Amino acid sequence: MTESSYDPRSFKALTFHDALPRFRDGSDTPRAYLERCIATVQARDPVVKAIVTLNLESAREAADASTARWQNAKPLSAIDGMPIGIKDLLETHDMPTEMGCEAYRGNFPKRDNAAVWALRQAGAVIFGKTVTAEIGGAHPGPTTNPFNPARTPGGSSSGSAAAVGAGMMPAAIGTQVGGSIIRPAAFCGNFALKPTQGGINRGERQATSMSTHGPHAGSIEDMWQVAIEITRRAGGDRGCFGLFGPPTPPAAQKPGRLIVLETEGWPDLDAITKAGFETFLEQLRSAGITLLRRADHPWIEALEQSVRDGRAVCGTITSWENRWGQRALVDAHPNGVSERAQATLRRAEALSPDDYRAALLTRDAAQLGHKAVAPLADAIVTLACPGPAPLWPGDVAGQPLTPRPTGDFVFNAPSSMLFAPAVTVPLMAVGGMPVGVQVMGQQHEDARATGIARWLVENVAPVVV
Amino acid sequence: MTESSYDPRSFKALTFHDALPRFRDGSDTPRAYLERCIATVQARDPVVKAIVTLNLESAREAADASTARWQNAKPLSAIDGMPIGIKDLLETHDMPTEMGCEAYRGNFPKRDNAAVWALRQAGAVIFGKTVTAEIGGAHPGPTTNPFNPARTPGGSSSGSAAAVGAGMMPAAIGTQVGGSIIRPAAFCGNFALKPTQGGINRGERQATSMSTHGPHAGSIEDMWQVAIEITRRAGGDRGCFGLFGPPTPPAAQKPGRLIVLETEGWPDLDAITKAGFETFLEQLRSAGITLLRRADHPWIEALEQSVRDGRAVCGTITSWENRWGQRALVDAHPNGVSERAQATLRRAEALSPDDYRAALLTRDAAQLGHKAVAPLADAIVTLACPGPAPLWPGDVAGQPLTPRPTGDFVFNAPSSMLFAPAVTVPLMAVGGMPVGVQVMGQQHEDARATGIARWLVENVAPVVV
Repeated sequence: MTESSYDPRSFKALTFHDALPRFRDGSDTPRAYLERCIATVQARDPVVKAIVTLNLESAREAADASTARWQNAKPLSAIDGMPIGIKDLLETHDMPTEMGCEAYRGNFPKRDNAAVWALRQAGAVIFGKTVTAEIGGAHPGPTTNPFNPARTPGGSSSGSAAAVGAGMMPAAIGTQVGGSIIRPAAFCGNFALKPTQGGINRGERQATSMSTHGPHAGSIEDMWQVAIEITRRAGGDRGCFGLFGPPTPPAAQKPGRLIVLETEGWPDLDAITKAGFETFLEQLRSAGITLLRRADHPWIEALEQSVRDGRAVCGTITSWENRWGQRALVDAHPNGVSERAQATLRRAEALSPDDYRAALLTRDAAQLGHKAVAPLADAIVTLACPGPAPLWPGDVAGQPLTPRPTGDFVFNAPSSMLFAPAVTVPLMAVGGMPVGVQVMGQQHEDARATGIARWLVENVAPVVV
Repeated sequence: MTESSYDPRSFKALTFHDALPRFRDGSDTPRAYLERCIATVQARDPVVKAIVTLNLESAREAADASTARWQNAKPLSAIDGMPIGIKDLLETHDMPTEMGCEAYRGNFPKRDNAAVWALRQAGAVIFGKTVTAEIGGAHPGPTTNPFNPARTPGGSSSGSAAAVGAGMMPAAIGTQVGGSIIRPAAFCGNFALKPTQGGINRGERQATSMSTHGPHAGSIEDMWQVAIEITRRAGGDRGCFGLFGPPTPPAAQKPGRLIVLETEGWPDLDAITKAGFETFLEQLRSAGITLLRRADHPWIEALEQSVRDGRAVCGTITSWENRWGQRALVDAHPNGVSERAQATLRRAEALSPDDYRAALLTRDAAQLGHKAVAPLADAIVTLACPGPAPLWPGDVAGQPLTPRPTGDFVFNAPSSMLFAPAVTVPLMAVGGMPVGVQVMGQQHEDARATGIARWLVENVAPVVV
């Protein structure tokens, strides 16, 4: 068995925000920064396999242009020169968009997703495309966990999470429908933001009524800066106001009261992770923060009840909304789509409009339940994943397909169905693997959730169990 | 000058619902019905130019299958065998989707839009693709008004409206963002439904936060039946409950009170149309219906105020939401997009995220204003278009582009920004051209608005001025 190597007390993630003074004084340059990232990719990616495509020529050109801007003291933004990876579900004008799916092999629409466009406007260096689980679903790509190649990096933003975790780049864009940003980020030791639904413009990739774009990063500062630079230029989704918050990372904000959400994942959680999380909570209590749990208030119990079938609700909504697109894909490419995705499609095609309406009603009711607890506490805290990333030896021919090979989204379904902002912070290690702690805010309180997460990072000792 | 030939007192539209008894007793068949439609296309389309593509082989095959089902008394639905046209913005697996745009020439994704899929499931005969103004915008296609070829059929659902008006088919699918279903329908003597936002599943064509699919038809019965058969199978848009209402056309419902909405179109309305509409309203008063206008209640005045910049609000929202897609299109095909569309793109690219947010806020506030008047009346009545379809001689080289060559959407912007259901009924003729009367309901009251519209059709004499 390969050794797991993560220790949050010594782990040093790659960061960008603290390089800016050196860009200003000329002791470092975006081009040199990029070259260090390239060297890390060369060293780590043969095992981690986070990258689908790099466009070195275009990235070096962008880094040189950024270097010149910094030399002239005219950067376009605080992420000017930041090398950033783009999940391979989002279109990029200079690289193919293959979505981890055989049917999309060679797909190259030669246009930028709105968020990618905004990143380029801000001077970011679009470094490469990162592996996605097939069409953002459950069927894994080749990526391995940067802290143990025998384990999954999580999905579907597998490559973005692993590339950041391996220090190949300071930030990368992921997408979430059920748990595809926060879970892989938690498994790979990242910071990540799943914004309020509609917070970041998804452009051509409208996907489902629950999907979002969000940044993975090695620091909470870079995480926020990437998100806000996108929305300052491209706004939010169609019909949405977009991310609210300051133009620089929110200051650390100590919460007075936090709700501890157990979710449907609690009963099945392994004892070590559970004990570690309780140790984490104990530190909050020691700092004078009031923690409220399901037994402490009927509205919290009601919220727990309203998200207790979160996975099923997310599954029904998402598979129904994807059904026509996926049917067309399978019809056009009968051998180009995995058996896992085809099984999802069969389940979708067994649903009726009324099944879908029922799931929407459950989602709406849960959002009301979430709104109701707003006056009780500053935010919600919970795990970002059910323990460390599971082992993933691959499917075995002739055996039934492993369910959820990229891990379980049981702790992510709530924020997804609540349309709530969620931030994961790398504050735990279980058996040498990262486990994230998740802060969830009310809709549009992305900045407050980020400020509270920042307070945790700066004031709570990582728990190692 | 070509003569205008529309008289609502004698005009007989092509209908389908009344053919079903003959399909049942064998005195008519869907195949024979289709052949009559084909003959009308051959007779009229050389001048009307409503059709982009017909797929006669596939349509005849579908009509024969439907004929067999009726002979076996096993129709799939009440629209089994109905020949129906599809606006060329929606994908169809057996015909190209060229969107009235040179850049999409030959585009053939070989898949069905969700609504098209649902129509096929219901046994409808997908007869052909109908002309759209370029990418659903303002730049007209070749279609002429079926009642006077010197005049526009309206847009952007030009072909769907004209094909139904010319009796080539009993129904066709259109789409609306600002006024693209109701206005052309009103100019061409159709019945049409622009459903509550999200009412009909747009599938791959999510377009903007304000766009909808809706049926044009020769009768209110066929209009409703097409809409409900789609949503019974494919539901509404992502995140939306979809159209509510009975599985057969709503019965006529006499309103007790109606709000007359003037909109920003009233001051510029020509005197003849205005007089005709007042004559129409006088008939309602004579029938004992109470009419409320802006002077009668401060909330109605407030609603008028909240939609007074409707065209500008729709324009800002739509052009912002389309900007990334259209920029990519123009970059990929610099000569494949009209100067009109490029001018729209330039305006979009001058907007900031805050301009867009301001327009969303105005839209939200108007929706609150609309909700407020719900207790005052059963529905809203207004014109569906600002008088008869204007003359359209085409652009003149070297001259500035004509603004709004497919007519003005001033009477359509309100229902679009209110996300409200709107039904147009052909109850007026001005100078030998059709003018529609519009019934608007509260969100999700599509069936009630349709029932009231049906009462008007069955109880009010058409006004000819």
